[in-house]
Amino acid sequence: MIENEAKGVLLVLSGPSGVGKGTVCKALLARNPEVKLSVSATTRAPRPGEVEGVSYFFKTREEFERMIAAGEFLEYMDVFGTNYYGTPRAYVEQQLFAGDDVLLEIDVKGAMNVKRIFPEAVLVFIAPPSMETLKKRLVGRGTETEEAVKRRTQEAFAEMKLMPKYDYVVVNDVLEEAVRSVETILEAERLRAWRRTDLTNLCKEAGTDL
Amino acid sequence: MIENEAKGVLLVLSGPSGVGKGTVCKALLARNPEVKLSVSATTRAPRPGEVEGVSYFFKTREEFERMIAAGEFLEYMDVFGTNYYGTPRAYVEQQLFAGDDVLLEIDVKGAMNVKRIFPEAVLVFIAPPSMETLKKRLVGRGTETEEAVKRRTQEAFAEMKLMPKYDYVVVNDVLEEAVRSVETILEAERLRAWRRTDLTNLCKEAGTDL
Repeated sequence: MIENEAKGVLLVLSGPSGVGKGTVCKALLARNPEVKLSVSATTRAPRPGEVEGVSYFFKTREEFERMIAAGEFLEYMDVFGTNYYGTPRAYVEQQLFAGDDVLLEIDVKGAMNVKRIFPEAVLVFIAPPSMETLKKRLVGRGTETEEAVKRRTQEAFAEMKLMPKYDYVVVNDVLEEAVRSVETILEAERLRAWRRTDLTNLCKEAGTDL
Repeated sequence: MIENEAKGVLLVLSGPSGVGKGTVCKALLARNPEVKLSVSATTRAPRPGEVEGVSYFFKTREEFERMIAAGEFLEYMDVFGTNYYGTPRAYVEQQLFAGDDVLLEIDVKGAMNVKRIFPEAVLVFIAPPSMETLKKRLVGRGTETEEAVKRRTQEAFAEMKLMPKYDYVVVNDVLEEAVRSVETILEAERLRAWRRTDLTNLCKEAGTDL
């Protein structure tokens, strides 16, 4: 893909489990209805009320594996060897080409894959105010055994190590402030010179190209 | 210089003559008193009321040329062969190391030099809403001959061609909006992962480095 063809912002929100990235995403979408949430593909069966192409793109294992082989995912994962989940590249690119911003909420490994395939993606690491807070949030879910919490905490520490590879870091202490920071990043990225298709006329008048 | 040592944002506002970059800078500084305006060096004589190290660093031609030879400028220019003006690198770096943001208002050639020497500088191109508006602004100054206006208009068209080399483009149509856009860029750049010295403790807890 030629960088200058995709003018929307591919905004990747990621971070350790327990950091509240889902909450940040939800609040961001509520306040910015023009931002499109990426639709994932999955091999799990549709649940009642789920709509093809809205909730998910539902695929068989064979279809999913053919798409993997054809390089049609920006990132995917095999969850406990039972189901695949992934972000279809074509769907994201269509939105970006149309000038829409696309939001991806994925884990840190997925984010690294997206950046590799799509270097102009904007990676935002949602960080906890402290590791103590993160641990409390993982315990606080109360739905898991002590063993599971311990494992998730270890994972979270490992995930934190990828923070320096991100473009931006936003601390999720006060939700409202975290969402404002992500909005600021999105607004600034929209002003990137190579994204300013709205300035085509000005460039023509001045005899140049963006 | 090691990129990770300079944590403040070096914000370069630039654009064609007549675009109003001085007005944008003034408004930005008024609203963000924590941003430091870079102090230039010059060989011209101090005018009444000008203070060394505040208005300018006043230099003799010999001192200035020694500094050029020693690579001590981020950019400089020789104005009609009569006086030098330049941005001393050491002064800017001191502020950045201290974590302060520094604002530079310079012409497009200067901006290109700064980016070459200091790749982490954030280059913002202030663009006119249209070339017609820019021409009117150049005429509207009313202080220059028709010939001078014609020459400045030609220069402005040449300067526009460097727009694609900038990081961001901000259109100066409504001043208030232009200033808000520059502020948004500054706020987003402060969230860059490699600038987050405020997260040193979090990184230590998580056993990583930014």
